[in-house]
Order: sequence, then C-alpha cells, then structure tokens
Amino acid sequence: MLYVIGLGLSYVDDISVRGLKAVQKCARVYLEAYTSILMAASKEDLEEFYGREVILADRELVESGSDDILEDADKVDVAFLVVGDPFGATTHTDLIIRAKSLGIPINVIHNASVMNAAGACGLQLYNFGQTVSLVFFTDSWKPDSFYDRIKENRDIGLHTLVLLDIKVKEQSFENMARGRKIYEPPRYMDIETAASQLLEIEELRQEQAYTADTPCVSISRLGSPEQKFIAATLGELAEIESGEPLHSLVILGHRTHEMELEYLLDFAPNKEAFQKAVEAEINAEKAKHPVVVTEEDNNQ
Amino acid sequence: MLYVIGLGLSYVDDISVRGLKAVQKCARVYLEAYTSILMAASKEDLEEFYGREVILADRELVESGSDDILEDADKVDVAFLVVGDPFGATTHTDLIIRAKSLGIPINVIHNASVMNAAGACGLQLYNFGQTVSLVFFTDSWKPDSFYDRIKENRDIGLHTLVLLDIKVKEQSFENMARGRKIYEPPRYMDIETAASQLLEIEELRQEQAYTADTPCVSISRLGSPEQKFIAATLGELAEIESGEPLHSLVILGHRTHEMELEYLLDFAPNKEAFQKAVEAEINAEKAKHPVVVTEEDNNQ
Repeated sequence: MLYVIGLGLSYVDDISVRGLKAVQKCARVYLEAYTSILMAASKEDLEEFYGREVILADRELVESGSDDILEDADKVDVAFLVVGDPFGATTHTDLIIRAKSLGIPINVIHNASVMNAAGACGLQLYNFGQTVSLVFFTDSWKPDSFYDRIKENRDIGLHTLVLLDIKVKEQSFENMARGRKIYEPPRYMDIETAASQLLEIEELRQEQAYTADTPCVSISRLGSPEQKFIAATLGELAEIESGEPLHSLVILGHRTHEMELEYLLDFAPNKEAFQKAVEAEINAEKAKHPVVVTEEDNNQ
Repeated sequence: MLYVIGLGLSYVDDISVRGLKAVQKCARVYLEAYTSILMAASKEDLEEFYGREVILADRELVESGSDDILEDADKVDVAFLVVGDPFGATTHTDLIIRAKSLGIPINVIHNASVMNAAGACGLQLYNFGQTVSLVFFTDSWKPDSFYDRIKENRDIGLHTLVLLDIKVKEQSFENMARGRKIYEPPRYMDIETAASQLLEIEELRQEQAYTADTPCVSISRLGSPEQKFIAATLGELAEIESGEPLHSLVILGHRTHEMELEYLLDFAPNKEAFQKAVEAEINAEKAKHPVVVTEEDNNQ
C-alpha cells in the first residue's frame, strides 16, 4: 500500500492521528521536501516524533526516481509525506498515477493546506477565484501568466490567493551546465518581493488588473506559532518586512463583504486607510454596474 | 482559551494529534452539528475516542447562544469542534469575532475540508473558480444565484465546486409557526437531486451556463472508506443513484488539462463518451478564441 499523507502546515503534531498510525506501520517513510516546508519542524523532529527514519525526497527522486519510492509497495507499506494536503501540487498527482499504473493500492490521508487554511485571514473561501503562483523573476525571465488570471478574478470581484515561489536544492546555471551537484541555499519568496514583482508586471502591462492602491492581505507563517496577517495596499506591502517564511498573499476583489472587512481591520496597521481602499474598490465597481444585492446573496 | 478545531472529513482519528491533545485538556467540548457531519463517526464514537463528554451544538446554540459556549473561556479551555476546517462556514467566523470582542484568546487548529480535499478527484485546485452552494428547492423557493457564478467560472474556463445542502434539525413551517420544537429527519442532498435542480435552472435561464452535456464529477463520501467519484455529464448524473451522503459536485470548465482528464477517466463509467464531452468543450472554446498555449501555462 502507498500511503500519501498530508502533514498540515507547521507542527510535527499537525499530522492526523490516522496519518500517524499509518506512518508508524510503514516499511519506508519519504518526506517530499521541495514544494513546501513544515515551518515548526525539521526532519529530525519528525523522526523523533514518529520514532522512524525519514528519507528526504527531492525533486530528482520524485520525478525521475519514483520507481525507487514505489519499489515493493504492492507488498509492503510505504508512506509518502507531503506538507499541506497531498493534492496541493501536480507532482503528487503524477506519483499517484504512476502507482495506479503499477497496480499499487493507494490510501490518501488529507490535511489542511494553504488553499483552505487561508480562510483564517477572515476572507470567505467562496469569494476566491482561481489560485495563482508567482515565481522568482530573473533579469531575463519574468513569467507573467498570473497577471491575466488575477485580472479574470478581479473583473468578477473575486479574491486571488497568490502562492509564492520556493527554491530548494536548486543548481546555478553554471553548476548545472558543468554537471556539478552543488546546490544554492534555499530561497523562499517574501511578501515585499512578491508585491514588487506584481507591481513590476502591472507597470509593463498597464491593464489595471490591480494597482499599488489595491487592498491585499499578507499571510505569513500560516498555522505556525508566528502566524501573522497584514491588511494593507499592494504598494504598502512592497515596503514591509515580512520576516521568516512561508508567505502567501491575497489580492482582494471588489465583492469584499462587510464581515470580511470587519475581520481584516484587526490586521490593518492603518485601519482608516485600509477601509477607504476597500470601499473605493466597491464604489468604483458599483459605479460601473449598478447591482441589486438580494437577501440570498447576503446570506450565502 | 477557545480552541476551534477542525475534525477533517470522516473518521474519528482524522483529527490532528495537536487537535486531540487540545480536546483532552478542555473543560467543555462542543461539536458543531448542523453545517456538516463526520461520515464515519457518531457523537458516541467521538466521546469514546476522546474519553470526554461532547456537547452537540445546533444552529440555535451557536447563533443565539454563543455566550453559553464562550462562558468562562477567558479562564478555562473550551473546544469548539468543526467538521472539515474551522473556516469552511461563516457561522464559525461569527463565533470567533464574538470571542475576540470578549477578549478571549483563540487557537485555531486546521484540518482538511472539501475545499482542498476535492483535489482527490484529479482536478487541479488552481483550475477552480469560486465555490457555490446549492440549497434544496421547494415549490415556491428556488434560489438561483449560483447560476451566475457558475457562468462566471465557466466563461473563463474554470471548474466549479458545488456544495450541496444539508438540513439538520429543521422545523416544518407549521411546527415553527406553532412554536413546537419538533424537528424533521435530517436530509442531505444527493447528486441526482443536485444535477436535476441545476438543469431545472438552466431550463429557466437558458444562458448556457452549462447544459445536460457538460462534463462533471460527482464526489461522494470524500475521505471516507466509501469514497466514490463518477465522471459523467450533468444529464447522466441526474439519473444515477449516488447512495449515502455526503456529496458534492464539480462542474468542469473548458481549461481541463490532459493530466486532469487522464485521472478522471478512471472514474468514468463511459470513458469514450466522457472524453468526447470534455474534448467538445475544449474545442468549442478554441473555436471562439484561438489561444496560444505557452510552455509556462503547461508547467504551472
């Protein structure tokens, strides 16, 4: 049996009781260690908590060596641990498809991920559109497909969850070209970099998908002891210090509800300005399309 | 301290180890019992597993009697247990806002919810638009605000997660009018009812938000031992027997990716017809707006 087990967001004991029981009976335990990290626990903490050896599975092992992970999994139990929920990244779907094709039985044990726990900032999950990813720009590579998607969400008033890039065990171009297995130190995109990159693309595209005045919420260290939200405009977030990883960002849509705003104001360093930024968006939209809000919409 | 603890989807031991530790040290333990149910565990199962009494909290207690729940929570620990993740329903946000206003410290322990575990059907979460809810229609009340939202999602190619109504401890109009505390048996919307109601509204609105030929996936008993997915058209799903609750439904968008389709075909009783239905949507969209797919889009 292949157990694919979500670890949740932060602590060693965010794993479910059912997940822990499964880990403890497996012959081999792999930890996927390149799409995310567990914020309040190291590999050694996990090993101590499980009472088991944990094998770090980097991108190379998962994507090209998945047969090593799946070896004998039709006879013995193998655990593949994933930070968040197992279906957060396409990588894990690939592994499951591969296991299925080998006739290996699969048991998925779910957990919280940023996709649902983001609701902790006070924004309602049913007001979110599609989630986008933002990668580290280089001088020559600034992929901006997220821009159209944020615009699609914002055009219909929805919030956008922006997932920020993580670079773990990456090689420099030179080391890769020379076949040297030397890796760069891990990098996790912070809020100020994310906000600056977003504004850089708006500057280039000029389609007003968002601006420096757009209200946002930074989500830092979600689910960890040092969880922090900051409700501010995108321009303000480009200037903050967001501290230790992990981070994500929500760009608000104009359908922001009164209760959402009330909740967010607790996280706004400048409450009055933030409220004005949100109301400006709502009013600009009302001016474009006068809409009758029904009782049903309010109760949803 | 008020602990708001997600229980996950199904089993008693889907609670996290950290959540279980918190439950065991609380003076009072409430279980929110009207927005969802734990599929493979009763209140008694939970009490046995926790070694603690569990108080059922119905809508009345949570919405009008939240002060009873929060009583002394500034001095003793109180647990409020929620099926799925604590931020799945606005109800729980209300309780947290109330606790905050009373100066009660709050600790949220996240878990899986249908909003992220829905990825188990093989559709990628970043291809979903806004989530909608579908309530039981009556002869005189057929709220259809979901229709415009599904159309918004589908116009930009995104999938829609449709959450289906649950009626627990509801009174008939007559019993309510006469002040009799007699409750109807619980009802959980099944896939065939959901699909029929969706088609009924399309029949009325005729804006082609979706049709009987639109490819969908039914999600039944997600995360439970009897989890089942069926990939079929909306018209076909109106005719099936989906069995025991809980259910939800995904209406596909035309951005369906090859890997998503490959995964779904495992759940299609009629693979060839389902593949054709998906391809018909993709092709209809291509005919409307010829789009250049970039390498980046494929790798997202």
